[in-house]
Amino acid sequence: MSSTEGKSITCKAAICWGAGEDLKIEEVEVAPPRAHEVRIKILYTGICHTDEYTRSGKDAEGVFPVILGHEGGGIVESVGEGVTNVKPGDHVIPLYTAECKECKFCKSGKTNLCGKVRATQGKGVMPDGTTRFKAKGQDIFHFMGTSTFSQYTVVADVSVVAIQDKAPLDRACLLGCGITTAWGAVVKTPGIKDSTVAVFGVGAIGLGVIETSRLVGASRIIAVDTNPGKESWAKKFGATEFINPKDLGDKRIQDHLVEITDGGLDFTFDCTGNVQVMRAALEACHKGWGVSTIIGVAPAGHEIATRPFQLVTGRVWRGVAFGGVKGRSELPTLVDDYLQGKIKVDEYVTHERKLNEINAGFHDMHGGNCIRCVVDMQD
Amino acid sequence: MSSTEGKSITCKAAICWGAGEDLKIEEVEVAPPRAHEVRIKILYTGICHTDEYTRSGKDAEGVFPVILGHEGGGIVESVGEGVTNVKPGDHVIPLYTAECKECKFCKSGKTNLCGKVRATQGKGVMPDGTTRFKAKGQDIFHFMGTSTFSQYTVVADVSVVAIQDKAPLDRACLLGCGITTAWGAVVKTPGIKDSTVAVFGVGAIGLGVIETSRLVGASRIIAVDTNPGKESWAKKFGATEFINPKDLGDKRIQDHLVEITDGGLDFTFDCTGNVQVMRAALEACHKGWGVSTIIGVAPAGHEIATRPFQLVTGRVWRGVAFGGVKGRSELPTLVDDYLQGKIKVDEYVTHERKLNEINAGFHDMHGGNCIRCVVDMQD
Repeated sequence: MSSTEGKSITCKAAICWGAGEDLKIEEVEVAPPRAHEVRIKILYTGICHTDEYTRSGKDAEGVFPVILGHEGGGIVESVGEGVTNVKPGDHVIPLYTAECKECKFCKSGKTNLCGKVRATQGKGVMPDGTTRFKAKGQDIFHFMGTSTFSQYTVVADVSVVAIQDKAPLDRACLLGCGITTAWGAVVKTPGIKDSTVAVFGVGAIGLGVIETSRLVGASRIIAVDTNPGKESWAKKFGATEFINPKDLGDKRIQDHLVEITDGGLDFTFDCTGNVQVMRAALEACHKGWGVSTIIGVAPAGHEIATRPFQLVTGRVWRGVAFGGVKGRSELPTLVDDYLQGKIKVDEYVTHERKLNEINAGFHDMHGGNCIRCVVDMQD
Repeated sequence: MSSTEGKSITCKAAICWGAGEDLKIEEVEVAPPRAHEVRIKILYTGICHTDEYTRSGKDAEGVFPVILGHEGGGIVESVGEGVTNVKPGDHVIPLYTAECKECKFCKSGKTNLCGKVRATQGKGVMPDGTTRFKAKGQDIFHFMGTSTFSQYTVVADVSVVAIQDKAPLDRACLLGCGITTAWGAVVKTPGIKDSTVAVFGVGAIGLGVIETSRLVGASRIIAVDTNPGKESWAKKFGATEFINPKDLGDKRIQDHLVEITDGGLDFTFDCTGNVQVMRAALEACHKGWGVSTIIGVAPAGHEIATRPFQLVTGRVWRGVAFGGVKGRSELPTLVDDYLQGKIKVDEYVTHERKLNEINAGFHDMHGGNCIRCVVDMQD
């Protein structure tokens, strides 16, 4: 039994007090976990565009004040009543896509979108409707059920998975979102072996899609990005070609891709969150069988559009969240794959920051030379 | 050898001389079939919304003057050099979706969208770039590679299939489009057995989708139409429920459907061609696995739209042309099924017209009580 079990822990966290504001490092009280909850000492966290999306105020459902962060790694400090899947001392990754194994969704065998804590998670509270964070006398909301921008966080037991102790958490934390999302989006799409693929957006997700497409045996992998600096990144991860749409003049990227691939791609992936790019990705697909998968998250209110003829002539438009991966069932194997050198993880980290530099980490992310910035929470 | 072989045939056809104009019954000269072409005596033809779509001028790619019609049945009069798949005297159905069995598309095993005659068909000419129809000294364009509104027509050999002589052509002609489209859209979508289905639009296609969903074992089939007169039709073909969106007040049909189905439908089908309905059909799908299929043809320039979140949370948006059916390979079996009473065909015919009443047939179609109007071409 740890000395902190059952008590509130006072620690540091990066709080976003309002839409569009920078994060502030504050003392926060983290209440002990209630039944079916787990308190985690967060050691490292990535910064992802979804954090920035909510911080910026573009997420219409964002609530403030809030502790953001959803790509973390840590060690279980204590568990509430009834928790059986992790125990104090376990190395863990918080899961913004829960897996209860009991709900209609989990049992369907068709989706990773567990329904158990969805409603409360969306409102920024724990399943009982309350928060575990307090700062300056105020309740602070949770984010995506994870809130990894705090030195300690509390999550539902269905929202956490234990991984091998051997995995370095300053790298494995990235499996909490980006890399896993990309990996799942590819391996759970049947038929990519020996097929042609185009990847729109060469960030962490795009690179993961490129690498996984190469691993499953795609015959041609075309990376598309408006930043020429991304060409070397794309090729390092397995792209066979790189196209900068800005080099095409007035020609639309989808028309160019259809031309150079004799009718279009077998598979395309949007890793940008830009709805115009999503449309281009669909329309770059081959008639009759092309499948376009949306991975990026678009700003609130933005809509995708196309002529229905694109679908009637055999293209499929779909999307995935967290790559379709069931975190509790599948993440431990992915961590094994990482440790065995089967998938890249270390290679994504271009920037490292201390907790008190977290706003600089957000700025890093907007730079064209950043793939992932990992924040050390224990400074 | 028939007395007409190798000669032009003068017969009657319904010609549309310009966008938005009524059809006119004219004398037309039908040239003999060239190599890999087949001349067919058309006995019966259905009238379909796609004919009306082009007639009305809404089809931006429509060319005039033209002989419309694509849902016909007839008898081969003569064949050009190199034709091996049909012979004079065969009872046949012209296919607006060709099947050459040799192109990239046919060989892919993934689509019915044969590429062989696509480009010329879209321009209203035969594969050699010329037309076989002349009226008043003018070349008349072909339509969808079939032009069944003529007593004689010429089609590519890849665009025709022989069927059993026993099948009455005044009914089997409907397998040239509507019924087959609906049948294919359902049987080629895996997983409908024991699943919930909503069908938007209770015309011939919608009824076909309803009936086929029942045949493959859907557990619940909800028909949606703004015409209350369609309720009895829907139920006769197998719908378990009927909903008129006009009865819902301000509530959107998709929200209502999600409510009454505990999260949405497993499968939805748009059989309207209305892009707003297509959106509703997608958004009525269950999160995580719902699949929405577009069958209807939308007016030129109209676009479908939705929030990408709808796809990221696991819905799939797709479409089919001619139900994904490969006409030459699959239609003969479907005709057998009809003759054995396994699928309804006769039940779709609500109106019958003579060739000289064909404009009245178009008006019939717009009436709320018409499912299919069959035109007798031999009056």
